[in-house]
Amino acid sequence: MSRVITLLTDYGTSDYFVAALKGVILATNPHAQIVDLTHSIAPHHIEEGAFTLLAGYVSFPPGTIHFAVVDPGVGSTRRPIVVLSGEHLFVGPDNGLFTYILEKDSDARVFHLTNEKYFRHPVSNTFHGRDIFAPVAAALSLGVGCEELGQEIADPCRLQPLKPTQLKNGRVKGRIIHIDRFGNCITNFLPLDLSSNDGFRVIVKGKTIRSMRQFFGDAHNREKIFCVWGSAGFLEIAAENSSAAKILKVKHGDKVIIR
Amino acid sequence: MSRVITLLTDYGTSDYFVAALKGVILATNPHAQIVDLTHSIAPHHIEEGAFTLLAGYVSFPPGTIHFAVVDPGVGSTRRPIVVLSGEHLFVGPDNGLFTYILEKDSDARVFHLTNEKYFRHPVSNTFHGRDIFAPVAAALSLGVGCEELGQEIADPCRLQPLKPTQLKNGRVKGRIIHIDRFGNCITNFLPLDLSSNDGFRVIVKGKTIRSMRQFFGDAHNREKIFCVWGSAGFLEIAAENSSAAKILKVKHGDKVIIR
Amino acid sequence: MSRVITLLTDYGTSDYFVAALKGVILATNPHAQIVDLTHSIAPHHIEEGAFTLLAGYVSFPPGTIHFAVVDPGVGSTRRPIVVLSGEHLFVGPDNGLFTYILEKDSDARVFHLTNEKYFRHPVSNTFHGRDIFAPVAAALSLGVGCEELGQEIADPCRLQPLKPTQLKNGRVKGRIIHIDRFGNCITNFLPLDLSSNDGFRVIVKGKTIRSMRQFFGDAHNREKIFCVWGSAGFLEIAAENSSAAKILKVKHGDKVIIR
Repeated sequence: MSRVITLLTDYGTSDYFVAALKGVILATNPHAQIVDLTHSIAPHHIEEGAFTLLAGYVSFPPGTIHFAVVDPGVGSTRRPIVVLSGEHLFVGPDNGLFTYILEKDSDARVFHLTNEKYFRHPVSNTFHGRDIFAPVAAALSLGVGCEELGQEIADPCRLQPLKPTQLKNGRVKGRIIHIDRFGNCITNFLPLDLSSNDGFRVIVKGKTIRSMRQFFGDAHNREKIFCVWGSAGFLEIAAENSSAAKILKVKHGDKVIIR
Repeated sequence: MSRVITLLTDYGTSDYFVAALKGVILATNPHAQIVDLTHSIAPHHIEEGAFTLLAGYVSFPPGTIHFAVVDPGVGSTRRPIVVLSGEHLFVGPDNGLFTYILEKDSDARVFHLTNEKYFRHPVSNTFHGRDIFAPVAAALSLGVGCEELGQEIADPCRLQPLKPTQLKNGRVKGRIIHIDRFGNCITNFLPLDLSSNDGFRVIVKGKTIRSMRQFFGDAHNREKIFCVWGSAGFLEIAAENSSAAKILKVKHGDKVIIR
Repeated sequence: MSRVITLLTDYGTSDYFVAALKGVILATNPHAQIVDLTHSIAPHHIEEGAFTLLAGYVSFPPGTIHFAVVDPGVGSTRRPIVVLSGEHLFVGPDNGLFTYILEKDSDARVFHLTNEKYFRHPVSNTFHGRDIFAPVAAALSLGVGCEELGQEIADPCRLQPLKPTQLKNGRVKGRIIHIDRFGNCITNFLPLDLSSNDGFRVIVKGKTIRSMRQFFGDAHNREKIFCVWGSAGFLEIAAENSSAAKILKVKHGDKVIIR
C-alpha cells in the first residue's frame, strides 16, 4: 500500500539514524511514501517537536502516519504509543510529544504499544525509533489496526497546554512556542484567543508591539517590528527583512502578553 | 502519474515548511516523485537560488516540474508564474528566480498563474509556497496545461544576466555566482566566453591566478590556488584540499576579470 | 523495478550536487526508491564515511544498492568500483570507503567499473558521482549484473581495520570512530572484543570511565560520564543529557584503551 509516513525527530541528518528508520520501514512496506517532516528538533526538546508536528501534519492527506520521536527517556519505562486523531495516526513515545494533537482533538484515541510481534528484534535499549516506532509505523501503513497493537489508555502524558491563559485584567498570557529559520517568533495565540483582531498590543521582553501587517513585505507599514498572522494560524512577531528573535532577544518559552 | 517534482527554497529544513509543501503535493498527486533540490538558499537570496536551479535542473528527465521559491515579496503584488522551457516546467514567484533559465532558452514561455481553481484555499498571505505554488506544481504533474493556469506574459522579471561582459581592452568581466560547500568559487564564465582556453589569467580580489587544473587533485600542478572547469560547466576557482573562498576572502557577487 | 538506492556523500545539501545524482538515477530508473543515508560526512573524510555506511546499510532490505562517494581523488586514476556483499551492492571510489564492509564479509566480491556504456557522457573530471556512480547505481537497480560492469579485482584499497588490537598486558586498544549529533563517542569495540562485559574500565584522553549503563537515562547510575552499548553494536562513551565529546574533548581517531 502506498501510504505516506512522515518522520519528525531530533536525530539530525549527519548520522545514520534517519536512514535506519527508512530502511526498516521499506523492508516492511516497500511502497511506503516516506517524507521528512524535520530532523532538526533541538536535542531532547519535546515541546519544539510538539509544535512542529502540529504545524506540519495538517497539510498531509487523510491516512497519513506520522512518526515522531524526541525521546530522552529511550530505554526507560515511558510507554510507546500510537494516537488516532481523525484519519491521521501518530506513533512515538508517551512523553508529551502529542499534547497539542490531543488538545486539538478531544476525540483522539491513544493506544499503548505492547504487541512485540510488530517490533524489530532484538529491541535495543538506545534506538527505539528503529526497533519499535519505525516497524510499527510500517505495520500501520499496511493496514494493521490500533487495537491489534496494544490496549487503549486514558492517561497519556501531556505538556503545558497550548491554549493561552485569560487574565483577570482582560489581558491574555501566552508564550513563544517556536522561532523559525527567518527569526519569526511564533506565539500560541490563535484569532479566537483575542477579543478583537484590531487594536491589540503585544508585550514581549518589555517591548510593546502595536503594529500589524497583512504580509511580511507590507509597504503600508513602516515599523521595523510587527505582528502578522502566520501560516500555521498563530500570531507571529516578525521584523522587516531580519530576525525578530535576534532583535528582541526572544527565545522559546518567553512570556507574551496581549492587551 | 509518476512525474518528478523538484523543490528549491530558502526555507531551511528545521521548520515544517518543506513538509507542508510535500503534504499538499501528495494530497493532489499521491504518485508524484518529490526530490529536494535544496532548501538552504540563503534567506531571500534570489540570485543564489537562480544559479542553483540552473545548475541542478539539467540532470532531471524531461517532464520534470521544478518548484522554486525564494520569495521575499510573498503576499505583495508580485506575480506567481510558470515557465515552460523545452520539456521542463518551473513554478514560482516572478522576481528574477528564473532569469538564467530564460537567458538560456529564448523560446521559453511564461504564464501568469491566475486560475485560483488550482490554489489551496484559503490562500494565506505568508505561505504561497504551500497555498499557490505546491498545488499548481501538483496540478502540472497530473497533466494540467499551462494555458489552463493563466495567460502568457512577455515581461517576466529578470536579474542581471549571467553572460559576462566583453571589455574594450580584450578582457572579460564576470563575477562569482556561487560558493559551494567545499569553498570552490564558481564564476559565470563558460568556455565560449573566452577567446582561448589556454594561457588566460584570472584576477579576483587583487590576486592573479595563472594555474589551470584538469581535476581537483591534479598532481602535475603545485599551485595552491588554481582554476578548473567545474561540473556545472562554469570556470571555478579552487584550492588544494581547502576553501578557495576562505583563502581569497571571496564572496558571492565579487568581480572577476579574465585576460 | 522498485529497488532502494541509498546515497552517502560529503556533498552537503546546500548545493545542487545531491539533486543531480537523483535526477540522473530517476532518468534511468523512474521507479527507484532513493533514500539519503547522509550527505554531511566531513569533506574528504573517508573513514567517517566508512563508519556511517557500515552502521546504516544493515537496516535496508536485501537488494538495496548503496551509493557512497567521499572522493578527494575524483578525476585521478583511483578506480571506480562496485562491491557485492550478500544481497547488498555498494558503488563508489576505491579509496577505502568500503573497508569495513570488506572486513565484515570476507566473501565480498569487488569489481572495477570499466564498461563506459553505463556512464553518463561526457564524463566530467570533477563530478564522477553524477557521471559514473549514479548511472551505474541506476543500472544495478534495473538488474544489470556486476560482471557486465567490469572485471573482478582482488586488491581493493583498505583503511586501517576496524578490529581493535589485543595488547600483551591484557588490554585492548581501540579508537573513536565516530561522534554523533548528541556528542556520544562511538568506539570500535564490539562485545566480542572484550573478554568480559562486566567490570572493564575505559581510558580515553587520560580519563578512566568505570560506569556502564543499560540505556542513556538509566537512573540507577549517577555518574555523569558512562559507557553504553550503542545502536550500531559498538561501545559508546556518553554523558547524561550532554555531549561526552565536548566534556572529554574527544575527537575522531582518538585512542581508547580497555582493561
